[in-house]
Amino acid sequence: MALVKPGVRAQSAYTLSAPPARRKLNQNESPWDVPPELKREVLAAAAAAQWQRYPEFAPPELLEALAARYGWVADGVLVGNGSNELIQATLAVTLAAGDVVVAPAPTFSLYRLLAGVMGARYRPVPFGPGFEYDVDALIDAAVREGARVVVLNSPNNPTGSALPEGAVERVLDETGALLVCDEAYQEFGGPTALPLLARHSRLVVLRTFSKALGMAGLRFGLALAHPAVAREIAKAKLPYNVNVVTLAAATAALRHGPALEARTRGIIEIRERFVSRLAVLPGLTAYPSAANFVLIKCHALPAAEVFRRLLTDHGILVRDVSAGTDLAQCLRISIGTEEDMEAVAGALVEILHAER
Amino acid sequence: MALVKPGVRAQSAYTLSAPPARRKLNQNESPWDVPPELKREVLAAAAAAQWQRYPEFAPPELLEALAARYGWVADGVLVGNGSNELIQATLAVTLAAGDVVVAPAPTFSLYRLLAGVMGARYRPVPFGPGFEYDVDALIDAAVREGARVVVLNSPNNPTGSALPEGAVERVLDETGALLVCDEAYQEFGGPTALPLLARHSRLVVLRTFSKALGMAGLRFGLALAHPAVAREIAKAKLPYNVNVVTLAAATAALRHGPALEARTRGIIEIRERFVSRLAVLPGLTAYPSAANFVLIKCHALPAAEVFRRLLTDHGILVRDVSAGTDLAQCLRISIGTEEDMEAVAGALVEILHAER
Repeated sequence: MALVKPGVRAQSAYTLSAPPARRKLNQNESPWDVPPELKREVLAAAAAAQWQRYPEFAPPELLEALAARYGWVADGVLVGNGSNELIQATLAVTLAAGDVVVAPAPTFSLYRLLAGVMGARYRPVPFGPGFEYDVDALIDAAVREGARVVVLNSPNNPTGSALPEGAVERVLDETGALLVCDEAYQEFGGPTALPLLARHSRLVVLRTFSKALGMAGLRFGLALAHPAVAREIAKAKLPYNVNVVTLAAATAALRHGPALEARTRGIIEIRERFVSRLAVLPGLTAYPSAANFVLIKCHALPAAEVFRRLLTDHGILVRDVSAGTDLAQCLRISIGTEEDMEAVAGALVEILHAER
Repeated sequence: MALVKPGVRAQSAYTLSAPPARRKLNQNESPWDVPPELKREVLAAAAAAQWQRYPEFAPPELLEALAARYGWVADGVLVGNGSNELIQATLAVTLAAGDVVVAPAPTFSLYRLLAGVMGARYRPVPFGPGFEYDVDALIDAAVREGARVVVLNSPNNPTGSALPEGAVERVLDETGALLVCDEAYQEFGGPTALPLLARHSRLVVLRTFSKALGMAGLRFGLALAHPAVAREIAKAKLPYNVNVVTLAAATAALRHGPALEARTRGIIEIRERFVSRLAVLPGLTAYPSAANFVLIKCHALPAAEVFRRLLTDHGILVRDVSAGTDLAQCLRISIGTEEDMEAVAGALVEILHAER
């Protein structure tokens, strides 16, 4: 144990204990399995593949298809076993012990954990009072601390906040940092940094097939960057990191783009109706969201109590994020089906003793 | 690019360019796809799974089954997207910039690459003249350099060398390092360090389902260590790193243990016949191997020429490792089917102008 770095020993692991529930709204997953035709195509490809053979190193057709889909060049695309792996690789090739990473707080907890494993100094910058991005404060912190890396999750988990238009350019122009834009939820709202790749080599954009594309179980993500930067990040990426089934699934998902995009539009509509309904409920604040989840703050009851009653009385599992920075009394609720969200709204009315 | 660590920029990426070939003997894969019943079971589980849901964090039944299979405790088992991911996590939680890693040379190139990304100093220790492990020299180097980590691949890729009995205890007793025993090929020969886990908390044993279990395409590996150490390594392991299909495949593979073990015995028999046949050929040296590959040194012709003629004249793809440390003139040949190895031996006879 003495051989484990002190900075690692001091950290807690990423954990999640999730009791089974009828309505699972705790991981920002799609409420629907992939379309049956897509699943059949992937299973047929899996059946035909030789499982004893290593996957292709970097399948050129898939890289080309991804480049076309995201409007970038194939040699600037890296595929990963989920986008988490590409966050890890990006941080690993840039951060040495003592280097500074700036990120907003609260945000996805993995950034802090990975920075800690690498011995970097993590500098969280608060959001504004309604969880809106404070771009000036982020830039100030990055400049003041000489940040080597800035990580911005937009829309941000768990707040739902999207970066304002122009923010990415400002961070690139006003700091010397590598900017990692984690756009895991971008399909659900907010601007994308993808068009800036052509002009900025200090930009890495991350995308995932786990959220809008509904393939969290198969683990597929990608990083987009200047080819010279992508080549460096690739050095910290393990060979053969995406398995044969997932490679087939990613390829198939790109073919089924329109069907999956229609689902994303459906989720956005359900979110908007859900947020409107919550807006008129007393006893809670619902924050605006550009993602497939909504953050609420409970006023009438402790968040832990609301969480417990949603689960035990209503079979609804949400995420209790109330222990996070500036998240006292907050719960994060993933957008499920229309019926799921009706049930959540009804349950919240009952729990918070609001008028029906 | 200036933001990428100099130690990373100085490295070359792990690459492999593999032209298509009739007999693919370059990646130490099994020559056979998994048994059809196993494949059917996995595909049925994949069809039934909900792909939009994240995989289980650490599936307890699978951890229990792995613990039973390898004779260890479930909370000392970590699963990974291939064992490479667990090598990476182990090194990430132990190595800071400037720390020393000792490993034999030549060995699997990923250790050096990962140590380099972490800014560690990599200290290779040569094998003996017939590629036998020089345990004294490894211990001397580890003590002299104050190594934080020693990595031993046994049987070793690409030499086929197995550690002698008692070597692992000696390294543990005579150095203060964390000892990572990468046993990716152990099913094919040589001793295992698994029984030592109960007495040594500075030991991490890595296993993979890519070689003897014939599932390289699905990416599954595991690390076994003292539970307190496993808990620390887990902090550098990404959440949800093994996908739903691979979890189902690993579970199914454990059920089909006897069939897969029979295949391993078959590979060992084919290897022994192949090595015996090469032993009497002039123009090359074949080194003894405890793995599912054989290292040869070409005397009569340049290795690159032998490689080229095997591929172009005979449709046989092997691995040209001749650029590696102490590997001048060497090729690594994976063990395929009996017929594959007959073809290789015949081709070598022809290429090296040996008597038929």
